[in-house]
Amino acid sequence: MKISVTGLGKAGLPLAAVIADAGIEVIGIDIDEKKVEVINKGINPITEETGLSQLIKKHGGNKLKATTRFQDAKDCNVHIVIVPLFIDKNKNPDFSLIKIAFENISKILKKDDLVVLETTVPVRTTEKLVKDILEKNSKLKAGNDFYLAYSPERIMTGYSISRFKQFPKLVGGIDAKSMEKAFEVYKKFTKPVKVRDSRTAELAKIAEGIYRDVNIALANELFKVAEHYSIDFWEMRDAAKHDYCNILEPGNVGGHCIPVYPWFLINELDVPLIKVARNLNDDMIDYYAKKVDEISGKRVGIIGLSYREGVKEKSYSRAVDFIRLLRKRGYKVYGMDPLYSREETEKEFGVKYLDNLNDMDVIILMNKESKYANQLKNIKNKVIDIKNVLGN
Amino acid sequence: MKISVTGLGKAGLPLAAVIADAGIEVIGIDIDEKKVEVINKGINPITEETGLSQLIKKHGGNKLKATTRFQDAKDCNVHIVIVPLFIDKNKNPDFSLIKIAFENISKILKKDDLVVLETTVPVRTTEKLVKDILEKNSKLKAGNDFYLAYSPERIMTGYSISRFKQFPKLVGGIDAKSMEKAFEVYKKFTKPVKVRDSRTAELAKIAEGIYRDVNIALANELFKVAEHYSIDFWEMRDAAKHDYCNILEPGNVGGHCIPVYPWFLINELDVPLIKVARNLNDDMIDYYAKKVDEISGKRVGIIGLSYREGVKEKSYSRAVDFIRLLRKRGYKVYGMDPLYSREETEKEFGVKYLDNLNDMDVIILMNKESKYANQLKNIKNKVIDIKNVLGN
Repeated sequence: MKISVTGLGKAGLPLAAVIADAGIEVIGIDIDEKKVEVINKGINPITEETGLSQLIKKHGGNKLKATTRFQDAKDCNVHIVIVPLFIDKNKNPDFSLIKIAFENISKILKKDDLVVLETTVPVRTTEKLVKDILEKNSKLKAGNDFYLAYSPERIMTGYSISRFKQFPKLVGGIDAKSMEKAFEVYKKFTKPVKVRDSRTAELAKIAEGIYRDVNIALANELFKVAEHYSIDFWEMRDAAKHDYCNILEPGNVGGHCIPVYPWFLINELDVPLIKVARNLNDDMIDYYAKKVDEISGKRVGIIGLSYREGVKEKSYSRAVDFIRLLRKRGYKVYGMDPLYSREETEKEFGVKYLDNLNDMDVIILMNKESKYANQLKNIKNKVIDIKNVLGN
Repeated sequence: MKISVTGLGKAGLPLAAVIADAGIEVIGIDIDEKKVEVINKGINPITEETGLSQLIKKHGGNKLKATTRFQDAKDCNVHIVIVPLFIDKNKNPDFSLIKIAFENISKILKKDDLVVLETTVPVRTTEKLVKDILEKNSKLKAGNDFYLAYSPERIMTGYSISRFKQFPKLVGGIDAKSMEKAFEVYKKFTKPVKVRDSRTAELAKIAEGIYRDVNIALANELFKVAEHYSIDFWEMRDAAKHDYCNILEPGNVGGHCIPVYPWFLINELDVPLIKVARNLNDDMIDYYAKKVDEISGKRVGIIGLSYREGVKEKSYSRAVDFIRLLRKRGYKVYGMDPLYSREETEKEFGVKYLDNLNDMDVIILMNKESKYANQLKNIKNKVIDIKNVLGN
């Protein structure tokens, strides 16, 4: 057996490394030439991922060979695709990367191969879009000539490798044979759990994200309620907690998972609760901007620019929208994040670098950013602690 | 120490019995003369409450003396009030029973007495409404002359006595001294937990109900989503379950707790998520009516008429509204419930008694009603299983 993994990002690379570590030959495919080169030298490009460096050092260029060419994977008999799926400005899914990946796979697809999608996708993507692309180009028939399954990644950047062991890995096929085939393969490097079909596995993955989105929205709404009554939300939350009540932590919801998945349903079906929750979480920056308005002074320092502490990623960071909003309201915005240099901060986020906390009228702690805890202690009364909710 | 408990209903009587069982003299006050008489004879009027009959047999008429007269409690130095609070047609709380209770308590209130409210109430009820009534009539000052606290009941009919041991009993005062005082008293018969103030305890109780309401609404919405995609909801739910995802069971939400508490906030504040969730759960009967429409035939049998299995109570039962709705749509509705006789069924619910399941075109299982499980097995294809969600 030889497995190709398309997409060596935060989800794909840990997966490829874990497969290689199970003794299976892996061809890792990515469009990023530099990344490919680095991996083949045994260097881990995703340093925030615990345990990954060790695996890449061991297997990069050996058991795990990275490449930009799909042709290099032509003798693989299992093809796993785990490329990003973003939503566009209208919150509609942009399938372009998925399409490219499967068009390329279809050209090297052979009889009896197994193809598995891991990207979180709208319900029925595997059995429709993916199947169609693969069949059209390969002239092979899914279920007959090759097998097709869906197995959602359940990673969380920083903890992805341990999650492979902790979390059941759902496996659902477009038919029973595909599921069985995928189950046998995944058993070699993780703990698969059989699910009736691919669409059930697709919805399960979306649902777990929505569960968190709705429950964080509930926490945000209860936070505002508590504030209205001059009640300490955190104490109230503790008091309410028991076996049948688990109110989550309030805050912003960033990242490319939780703020994205609900739209797979919102734009297709009538789901008022999921929609209200999504908008409520997104609108929390307005609520925080109003908090800033209550403080006199125009200099606002933002600590934590990426979508969450410890992950260097700007996309779906609520800080980006928050900076824009504060600017619109006439504030001078400064920022810093332990993962971004002065130059990166100014270039990527369009804010001045936050050199001196004491110069600010208010400090917004967007992420936890424990690194600054001591510095912030001295200017506690200036700090609004938001805490980005773990996004992925 | 001698304690009065006002309200010997499903919440008050177990509490009074537990206090008596701790060796403390209790005066139980209720307007229902017959109930009072029965209790004093050692007979338990709430037979569905596990373990209660034993306690009433032991203490009724002895340690626990029931009465209809507040004057009989004039030498009590602790007064606990645990009367129902309903909402009216406009979903506004009806404080009349609470007002009557405290007006009567205020007439027997003495210096250094402790007064505790246990009924679930809108935030600040204790420190405003209750305090005002007590002070006005007694000419005593809360916090100075007497102590006033809030400690929400967390019972669930059938399991109330074990819950006293399982669940932390929140205690919050209108001031620190009241809280300490209440804590010392409650320590004698339960496991109290100190909360900053009465309003924090009030909101905690409302929030735990809302947590369930919103999460059941989410389950209902995801149930509809799954159905749209021809996915087995229950299998999807199992697949999605892990440490950070716990989707509840979908169904109707009946009872006098969960469907009531959200309105304490909805009618006061802007809480769109809580409001959408509440309406979504209430509207599930429309969804089920549409299911009935899909079946040919006009005879509908409803099994389970009370708000949930094992509790003989009509108020806030979704069956009542569902029967009305089905009638409006032209159905002939029959009903049965193991707790109601033929006469009670026809009189209280205005439906014909469901004698023969085979005569029906469709059977709606509103509650679990495990008693009928065998009978239903044979006509499985006719049954729509709704399952009322535990209301209280």
